[in-house]
Amino acid sequence: MKVRVGLLGAGRIGKLHGTNLMNYVPDAEVTVVADPFMNEDMEAWTKSIGIPKCTKEADEVFADPDVDAVFICSSTDTHAEFIIKAAKAGKDIFCEKPIHTDISKIKEALAVVEECGVKLQVGFVRRFDHNHKAVRDVAVSGELGKIYVVKVTSRDPEGPPMSYVEVSGGIFNDMMIHDFDMVRYLSGSEVTEVNAVGAVLTDPGYAKYDDVDTAIVTLKFANGAIGVIDNCRTAPYGYDQRVEVHCEKGCVQDRNDLENEAFISRADGVVSAKPTWFFLERYNDAFVAEEKDFIDCIVNNKPIPVDGNDGLQPVRIALAAKKSLDEGRTVKMDEIEG
Amino acid sequence: MKVRVGLLGAGRIGKLHGTNLMNYVPDAEVTVVADPFMNEDMEAWTKSIGIPKCTKEADEVFADPDVDAVFICSSTDTHAEFIIKAAKAGKDIFCEKPIHTDISKIKEALAVVEECGVKLQVGFVRRFDHNHKAVRDVAVSGELGKIYVVKVTSRDPEGPPMSYVEVSGGIFNDMMIHDFDMVRYLSGSEVTEVNAVGAVLTDPGYAKYDDVDTAIVTLKFANGAIGVIDNCRTAPYGYDQRVEVHCEKGCVQDRNDLENEAFISRADGVVSAKPTWFFLERYNDAFVAEEKDFIDCIVNNKPIPVDGNDGLQPVRIALAAKKSLDEGRTVKMDEIEG
Amino acid sequence: MKVRVGLLGAGRIGKLHGTNLMNYVPDAEVTVVADPFMNEDMEAWTKSIGIPKCTKEADEVFADPDVDAVFICSSTDTHAEFIIKAAKAGKDIFCEKPIHTDISKIKEALAVVEECGVKLQVGFVRRFDHNHKAVRDVAVSGELGKIYVVKVTSRDPEGPPMSYVEVSGGIFNDMMIHDFDMVRYLSGSEVTEVNAVGAVLTDPGYAKYDDVDTAIVTLKFANGAIGVIDNCRTAPYGYDQRVEVHCEKGCVQDRNDLENEAFISRADGVVSAKPTWFFLERYNDAFVAEEKDFIDCIVNNKPIPVDGNDGLQPVRIALAAKKSLDEGRTVKMDEIEG
Amino acid sequence: MKVRVGLLGAGRIGKLHGTNLMNYVPDAEVTVVADPFMNEDMEAWTKSIGIPKCTKEADEVFADPDVDAVFICSSTDTHAEFIIKAAKAGKDIFCEKPIHTDISKIKEALAVVEECGVKLQVGFVRRFDHNHKAVRDVAVSGELGKIYVVKVTSRDPEGPPMSYVEVSGGIFNDMMIHDFDMVRYLSGSEVTEVNAVGAVLTDPGYAKYDDVDTAIVTLKFANGAIGVIDNCRTAPYGYDQRVEVHCEKGCVQDRNDLENEAFISRADGVVSAKPTWFFLERYNDAFVAEEKDFIDCIVNNKPIPVDGNDGLQPVRIALAAKKSLDEGRTVKMDEIEG
Repeated sequence: MKVRVGLLGAGRIGKLHGTNLMNYVPDAEVTVVADPFMNEDMEAWTKSIGIPKCTKEADEVFADPDVDAVFICSSTDTHAEFIIKAAKAGKDIFCEKPIHTDISKIKEALAVVEECGVKLQVGFVRRFDHNHKAVRDVAVSGELGKIYVVKVTSRDPEGPPMSYVEVSGGIFNDMMIHDFDMVRYLSGSEVTEVNAVGAVLTDPGYAKYDDVDTAIVTLKFANGAIGVIDNCRTAPYGYDQRVEVHCEKGCVQDRNDLENEAFISRADGVVSAKPTWFFLERYNDAFVAEEKDFIDCIVNNKPIPVDGNDGLQPVRIALAAKKSLDEGRTVKMDEIEG
Repeated sequence: MKVRVGLLGAGRIGKLHGTNLMNYVPDAEVTVVADPFMNEDMEAWTKSIGIPKCTKEADEVFADPDVDAVFICSSTDTHAEFIIKAAKAGKDIFCEKPIHTDISKIKEALAVVEECGVKLQVGFVRRFDHNHKAVRDVAVSGELGKIYVVKVTSRDPEGPPMSYVEVSGGIFNDMMIHDFDMVRYLSGSEVTEVNAVGAVLTDPGYAKYDDVDTAIVTLKFANGAIGVIDNCRTAPYGYDQRVEVHCEKGCVQDRNDLENEAFISRADGVVSAKPTWFFLERYNDAFVAEEKDFIDCIVNNKPIPVDGNDGLQPVRIALAAKKSLDEGRTVKMDEIEG
Repeated sequence: MKVRVGLLGAGRIGKLHGTNLMNYVPDAEVTVVADPFMNEDMEAWTKSIGIPKCTKEADEVFADPDVDAVFICSSTDTHAEFIIKAAKAGKDIFCEKPIHTDISKIKEALAVVEECGVKLQVGFVRRFDHNHKAVRDVAVSGELGKIYVVKVTSRDPEGPPMSYVEVSGGIFNDMMIHDFDMVRYLSGSEVTEVNAVGAVLTDPGYAKYDDVDTAIVTLKFANGAIGVIDNCRTAPYGYDQRVEVHCEKGCVQDRNDLENEAFISRADGVVSAKPTWFFLERYNDAFVAEEKDFIDCIVNNKPIPVDGNDGLQPVRIALAAKKSLDEGRTVKMDEIEG
Repeated sequence: MKVRVGLLGAGRIGKLHGTNLMNYVPDAEVTVVADPFMNEDMEAWTKSIGIPKCTKEADEVFADPDVDAVFICSSTDTHAEFIIKAAKAGKDIFCEKPIHTDISKIKEALAVVEECGVKLQVGFVRRFDHNHKAVRDVAVSGELGKIYVVKVTSRDPEGPPMSYVEVSGGIFNDMMIHDFDMVRYLSGSEVTEVNAVGAVLTDPGYAKYDDVDTAIVTLKFANGAIGVIDNCRTAPYGYDQRVEVHCEKGCVQDRNDLENEAFISRADGVVSAKPTWFFLERYNDAFVAEEKDFIDCIVNNKPIPVDGNDGLQPVRIALAAKKSLDEGRTVKMDEIEG
């Protein structure tokens, strides 16, 4: 018996999940897609991959008895509300990050999820990347002893349009949030202290929205380790995604996946291919892995790999980072609601 | 309008092509599967991926008006015969390698294909590997000038069972045939002379079948370049697949894809992941690429990227290599029928 | 005519410079060595490499008319005093880092140097490393456009004895001082703001001396760029020395030198050699390069590549980092004397 | 007590050995240099590095009681004769390769060496390279089990002048001879069979001297392994020197040393430095290591690491390779005098 999925939102990320679920996740099938902007093109897409139903009304999905689980891929402001509705309807929930940017809204949604006893997985897809996962597995296995330093570098190939920057919630909420999740994942510990430095270097437009395009955040962890994340909105050589955990007995890190492994030796140097271009290329397999894991947790009643608290904490750290940047000082996590 | 494919043979490679065509090649659909050993399991597989029909009779496929093209994935001895039947039925043909081990049979099949004006693509999948393709594109572009040396290393992670060795046709026909294709692809030229050295090192069983498990073949090409291929039936670290073209102005080569890009620095060295395990892992995307290319050639009436002659020549080179090994001398290609 | 060098201090670093000057710097010769602990072993060493004279009295060196230049390799507390004496005696000066840990003492020494018109080079040897230098040359050439982020990772293979930690001046003065120089070198700009996070992780002993063994420092630069340095006193895989400059049009970085370039592919992974063990191995050639450069500046009256101000600024940044760590806040460089 | 060395021949390689012995080999000193073309420049060089005596007459060196050992760096045609004279004078001998191109002359010299009981080391410097040595140590240790395949790639950055090609003795004697030594070193076994393919590709001038500029030689070894060497006279990206030993339990290989470990990630790819330019750069440290080893064998009366037979066998293999190329057939080593 396949898990019947209702897909909420058929934008870029919704289509990605829908296509993957239909083609690569044998235990799942998408039975309905809801999107307020449902149109002919979207319908054509649902048909082309074999999804039988589509609608403009999300509520039809929550009411649908032929839906076991929902994928919430709609706009961020709807996430918390849809989680609550789905939970009350007894559906298991996969929700794209972030749940909300307001801590109390997140906590409200998580409370309902717990009350209703449904499963909730948050879409921190990078945990499912083959490289980062291999690093984490070594780091938390203890084979390298105590963790000393956790480092994450994350750069996008090109910045978003300014229209997006305006509503993005800022670099910490929109971009570094993945890395806040990643350092928790890599360290197996909670962040206790945050310090941020930032600059507007790639485009003066960021300043207009009280945002920065380049930022470095240092962190302290409950287990004693310290860490650092550096982000930049542009990297013309492609998506730069590297993590490193330095430990008592060694250091484990990863390199970027490259477009290919060919290289040319010439009089002017040795030229290799670039890193894969952006998240669709780099985390392609990771998306499938997170979807399979979610479906597997439902089918075999396993604990969820990225749960509600994993959705909450990075939002708190993002708030602390912004506060640190604004006030020019180190911020302790217990200054932040949660 | 999708290209309707009849799949001949539902063994490992047949299932791979069938699954790929259904899931990853939007312009194709498999409408029927024929396999003399069709059974409940196979039928279950066809159903699970949405193939509507299955049969034990290949002839039903050739007669089926709802079949535009066939994928010949049946046992090697049926390839030439099925090509002829499909061609006469006006179907375009994708045929797994080799067409036949007998040159005259190959030529007979190719003649019918030409007569009937259908398309024929041979399954030399490595041409579609992202790494090898990147090497070839540089080599034949001329940007590095004249080609001097072409090198291919190809090692399987583990040898086949002796029952397979017995019927395999020997290392040159079964394993190095891919590399004979590869050197033609990389050099953009025909082989004119072959010398082989071989040894039984991994398992004395090979000797029983007049075969070797480790072989090195040197080659001369019509364009003046020279080349070398080394093969070994076992490599416990995984599938070792590397190519190199040394040219006037530089050298282009590739590394293996690794299981992941994580690496651990420890007191006893720096440890990276191994190469991907075998051809299903390494050439996974290449299989999809060759299928898409074949379907694209049909849909848009383009010339086939790996044609009948590309199917013929590697078989001739394999014969020359075996002759060289047996007679302890260099063999000129014009000694071989073709 | 060779530059005649008087060597002050014949400890580990003094012997290194002395041996290099005699063997690898054709335009220099060491004519005298002064060390308050001069003994038979030291004398034997001077003889073995052909240095004609040795003494316990540094003043003999300053008074010696056959000395053109001095290498100050004595204990840190003597550096400023020896610089002043050498300058007054008209000798050119190579001084190991740091000049002093007290800013006013450094400034006093630099003032005398300027007054006397002698040359002064400070021993920030990493600027002469082939890898870091290649990174810097690209970064400051402008070929990658504006500099966004400067990153330095620096880990020692093993921590010093606690007896050394006690007098070391702390991690920022003793270890990260090299990296403070490095970020100035890589960015071509001055530091304006510093924030430090630290922890005692490798050995509780550091806490006893109000020191940390692991630290991360973020920085802002006058040119707008931001940066980060991470240090750890132990890394059992060897000396970890990597720098990275992320820019508008690309990113330039370096890898560690390895003990050798051999690698073994096995069933359990691919094993390479470790990074070279410590600074004597890694910066061996860099020491010779800095010595040659200093001698060349004298012989050909060129400007010194690492001057007095380059000796001063890293000490100021180290003070700011310590202040930041102690006070849990970001420190602006103009809070620091200088 | 230092080993007193008489240097025969002060050309490029002689000067290299002389300088190294004086500067980097503490247990050796060069007491005299003999060169028939001794002139003011050469004398100035001897003085600059502290060699006290020089002469045009090699015989003065053999007669000199203050000479314990000789380095034969004179023209190839004098090697065998000088070995005999030095041996008769009771001097230990380091001789640059090859001893002679005539097998019987080599054997005659080796017989005298044995008779006189002096030590003879042949200058196959690549055995002392850190990378190749690391590969060999793993290969012959047995930790990877039985050796299957030995591979060597060797390309010079640029071809020699035609005036040199004329007298070089051909690619096998002049260039591949190092690789014939290398495969014996890596395999720990003797060659039993040789097959060569070659081409004139880089410069038609080679044909004039019955030579080729690009060659691939396959080999069989007494231990059952097979091997291959590929050579090319030009590689505009630098000196390409790679070895590989594929074994039962894994594969060990090396990469080239690069000029530095910096790399630039840009929109058009990731650019690293080239391999080091030529043998003086790549094998710089290896020359010192072989000299130290030779001196150490004398001082501590140890067995020589590269002995007379190691000087003989590569010459025999070169003859077999030329015969194979000329006759277009595989040549067995027992066809060659020895």
